[in-house]
Amino acid sequence: MTKGLLIVFTGKGKGKTTAALGMAMRAAGHGLKVCVIQFIKGSWQYGELAAIKRFEGLIDLHVMGQGFTWKSDNLEEDARLAREGWELARSAIASERYHTVVLDEFTYLLHYRMLEIEPCLEVLTNRNPAQHVVITGRYAPEQLIAAADLVTEMQVIKHPLQDGIKAQKGIEF
Amino acid sequence: MTKGLLIVFTGKGKGKTTAALGMAMRAAGHGLKVCVIQFIKGSWQYGELAAIKRFEGLIDLHVMGQGFTWKSDNLEEDARLAREGWELARSAIASERYHTVVLDEFTYLLHYRMLEIEPCLEVLTNRNPAQHVVITGRYAPEQLIAAADLVTEMQVIKHPLQDGIKAQKGIEF
Repeated sequence: MTKGLLIVFTGKGKGKTTAALGMAMRAAGHGLKVCVIQFIKGSWQYGELAAIKRFEGLIDLHVMGQGFTWKSDNLEEDARLAREGWELARSAIASERYHTVVLDEFTYLLHYRMLEIEPCLEVLTNRNPAQHVVITGRYAPEQLIAAADLVTEMQVIKHPLQDGIKAQKGIEF
Repeated sequence: MTKGLLIVFTGKGKGKTTAALGMAMRAAGHGLKVCVIQFIKGSWQYGELAAIKRFEGLIDLHVMGQGFTWKSDNLEEDARLAREGWELARSAIASERYHTVVLDEFTYLLHYRMLEIEPCLEVLTNRNPAQHVVITGRYAPEQLIAAADLVTEMQVIKHPLQDGIKAQKGIEF
């Protein structure tokens, strides 16, 4: 019997979403089913999407926040979309289908208080005990870190955008 | 014209190899060729290997250090294998075939002085300027960090092995 882990990749450094993508594909490599919910538009772009297509039937990808960056000036609409995304996450977690559920960039919804943290933590901590959940994003709240089993903070030691190099295919997206 | 980046994922936290795996699959998702050289036996296990098989013809994987953990008491044999691995890395870097070259757990060879760092840096910094190289592993030497374009340090905030949970399928391997 395996113990499902609540895993958080946080911090400002590169590699959070990429590590979650690697975990999703590794689990799918084992033939295990994965659900990925992307909460920020555009964080998974063509490279990721094409890579995921190679695992058809194993990785289900849902893109929330389409057309929408959580910097909207329509806070009510933001909150509605946040709740909609969370409902989807909740049903993926409740489903018996997924070995692993990835909530990509989910921390922002907690950090910016678009969702109440306590009910979210309740769902996360009361899930099927064999299921793994991976949450990425900056500013992981203390309570989430306290509830998690594995937390890595990706720290920026050096970032090329600091040197004025633009985002490019196969690296940033 | 893209600028190839020298990327280092270092630190003691989880996610270094997984982020490199994610980058390899993302680049392959774009249809770009990737060479992965694994310098520590067993760091890429069944899940990764099966995932990579889905990108046949796009990701070439080489496993060095087979039967060998860099803790051998035969230092001469270690040094010979280190040189052999580096020769392969050098030819992958020199080759015009690869968009991205991943040197997984390569930092240890520098840290434990199985290779001289200056000639390695010379190869890394004089490569085809469009090629990306991703190096993972703890203890990235200062000079490597200085030469790199993007460096993320994965810091352990929490690790499940601290709580006595064993490594498990789809998560640790």
